[in-house]
Amino acid sequence: MAARDPYLLTPGPATTAAETKAAMLRDWGSWDGDFKAITARVRARLLEVAEAGDAYTCVPIQGSGTFAVEATLGTLVPREGKALVLANGAYGKRAAETLARIGRDFEVYATTEDTPPDPAELDRILAADPAIGHVLLVHCETTSGILNPLEPVARVVEARGRSLILDAMSTFGALPIATSTLGLAAVIASANKCLEGVPGMGFVIARKADLQAATGNAHSLSLDLADQWTYMEKSGQWRFTPPTHVVAALGVALDLHAAEGGTPARGGRYAANHRAVVDGLRGLGIEPLIPDVLQSPIIVTFRCPDDPAFAFQPFYDRLKAEGFIIYPGKMTAAETFRIGCIGTLTPEIMGEVVAAVGRALDALGVARRNAA
Amino acid sequence: MAARDPYLLTPGPATTAAETKAAMLRDWGSWDGDFKAITARVRARLLEVAEAGDAYTCVPIQGSGTFAVEATLGTLVPREGKALVLANGAYGKRAAETLARIGRDFEVYATTEDTPPDPAELDRILAADPAIGHVLLVHCETTSGILNPLEPVARVVEARGRSLILDAMSTFGALPIATSTLGLAAVIASANKCLEGVPGMGFVIARKADLQAATGNAHSLSLDLADQWTYMEKSGQWRFTPPTHVVAALGVALDLHAAEGGTPARGGRYAANHRAVVDGLRGLGIEPLIPDVLQSPIIVTFRCPDDPAFAFQPFYDRLKAEGFIIYPGKMTAAETFRIGCIGTLTPEIMGEVVAAVGRALDALGVARRNAA
Ligand SMILES: Cc1ncc(COP(=O)(O)O)c(C=O)c1O
Ligand SMILES: Cc1ncc(COP(=O)(O)O)c(C=O)c1O
Repeated sequence: MAARDPYLLTPGPATTAAETKAAMLRDWGSWDGDFKAITARVRARLLEVAEAGDAYTCVPIQGSGTFAVEATLGTLVPREGKALVLANGAYGKRAAETLARIGRDFEVYATTEDTPPDPAELDRILAADPAIGHVLLVHCETTSGILNPLEPVARVVEARGRSLILDAMSTFGALPIATSTLGLAAVIASANKCLEGVPGMGFVIARKADLQAATGNAHSLSLDLADQWTYMEKSGQWRFTPPTHVVAALGVALDLHAAEGGTPARGGRYAANHRAVVDGLRGLGIEPLIPDVLQSPIIVTFRCPDDPAFAFQPFYDRLKAEGFIIYPGKMTAAETFRIGCIGTLTPEIMGEVVAAVGRALDALGVARRNAA
Repeated sequence: MAARDPYLLTPGPATTAAETKAAMLRDWGSWDGDFKAITARVRARLLEVAEAGDAYTCVPIQGSGTFAVEATLGTLVPREGKALVLANGAYGKRAAETLARIGRDFEVYATTEDTPPDPAELDRILAADPAIGHVLLVHCETTSGILNPLEPVARVVEARGRSLILDAMSTFGALPIATSTLGLAAVIASANKCLEGVPGMGFVIARKADLQAATGNAHSLSLDLADQWTYMEKSGQWRFTPPTHVVAALGVALDLHAAEGGTPARGGRYAANHRAVVDGLRGLGIEPLIPDVLQSPIIVTFRCPDDPAFAFQPFYDRLKAEGFIIYPGKMTAAETFRIGCIGTLTPEIMGEVVAAVGRALDALGVARRNAA
């Protein structure tokens, strides 16, 4: 085991800054003014990061990102409404499964894991089915790392007079999202990915008018975004006990995000991380699965070496022994592993990862097939 | 403001130990073996604290305690089933509201905030309505601090062949709960009360057979306890991103709980805290609302002094300036404030609280009406 704590080369929870973790060394009364002030600041900063104007509010919600997605769908899609899910990976599929579970009618427009949805096909689907009121798009499908075409999709959805819900879990804070300009109904994310906070809460940037109209619609008390919003506006408090330490850590993480230069700088660092690891592993003969032009800078899926000497678990264990925790593949179609580029990582650290991968392949006796 | 961080005299989030908070100074990969080991240990320890044998499992769930209550009701009460809620405060009412929201039929047996449910009346209700399959009891109704009669209620429910779900949010770890012996169907609690962990997760001690039978029943994907259990058993992982730092902190908090001497010692210290604050405030003429014999050692509701010079907010602010954060009343029937006895507090600290209350009353010009 390396002397330092391991770096997380994962799509979140990611490695966070020491200052962010240090914010958790205090206990807060959830009813107290000091904690209310933290909540208010976090909500305001998240609205700024989302480029969301006065028509929007930020509603934080306890639990993981999936909880925030379920809360959004359950609150915003009317009980007799219908949603369309654009799915090319696990998170699109999970959104559809959520709709099925909470009893909302839905349709799936599925493409393969390396294919973004086609805006023209989306337009045909919406034209043919006026019952579809909401469309859900996963910005970066973390399954593969593919970046889906937000702007073209948003234009089609707006032109057809429908509402777009964006699962921006793995892009928020690293890729720009022009919430107001694109007229998005809701943008969903969590504390623990590109914002580099710790896990335990999600949040939704939502149109106030939509939340207002959704009062009483949710299938759940805990996951009722409209209730959470109303209570928070009235009292400054969370409706139920908040994860106080997680919220405080997000407050510090947002300060660090701003200090780094906001979303452009954060995204720029991740892009440099991404280039360093893709170039480095290509040099070892390991190729990414998704063509570069479709690839987000968030996480990269690599094909496992086609060599009987390679096996994921010993590869993982060797990298862990050097202080790097990587991620298994989540694709259905190919043998893969994933390297996340988010968190407090830098291109220098990615260089160390590449070197460690080279040593691991050598130790496993995997033949180098230099692609160059 | 006091030089030290303020003590939380609240029903949770409570003041936690420095070691517990220090456990959050590391990032964990949620897929990694080290974190799986933490999860496994926490689950095993919670089963021990619950005195639950092999017929039970522990299912942790992201979010606050309310999320865990909703997950339990939504998973265990069949869609065509019916539940009875024994309600004498806000948390009983919230359980009923949850059942209404998730579309499960229910009945409420309500008593006033200072009156426990009568087991004989419960027996009559169950005898008259065979449709009631589940009964929900709130162990300590944190609204007032009243301790409800667990054993008599459990005996009646068992004799009538129904299932008892216990909301032990504010007692778990401080008052003994003989889960197996009492044949409870489920015991619900969270990390951040008597276990002295930080907020961000709840957990449910549930009968395995009941979870198995409940597969596919839940109204929600995120709050499906049966799914969470199945996935955890299979993979050792949480179904969706866990609040890693919160889980790690609970691991340390459980070690401290054991080192203190487990539930008897923890409950003993809280009882001493409780005596110190009740005796001390009585000496200042401030009386608890609930008769001592019905009172839990967790939190005490006090009547506000009946003096026009008293107002809650300046009273609160003066105590906060001395480093003590108290809690507002939550009763519908009387002007009250609450003092929690849980967290890393001691009788000595409670003595300091009493002295600070005396100074605050003097500063506000509230006349002392010594009850002695
Ligand atoms: C795009 C996307 N959506 C949803 C989720 C679910 O979030 P969580 O794991 O926090 O429930 C993730 C998590 O990786 C994600 O990347
Ligand atoms: C008895 C009881 N039930 C439920 C809850 C709800 O828990 P949370 O506030 O974590 O949602 C509480 C919290 O104080 C409680 O004391």
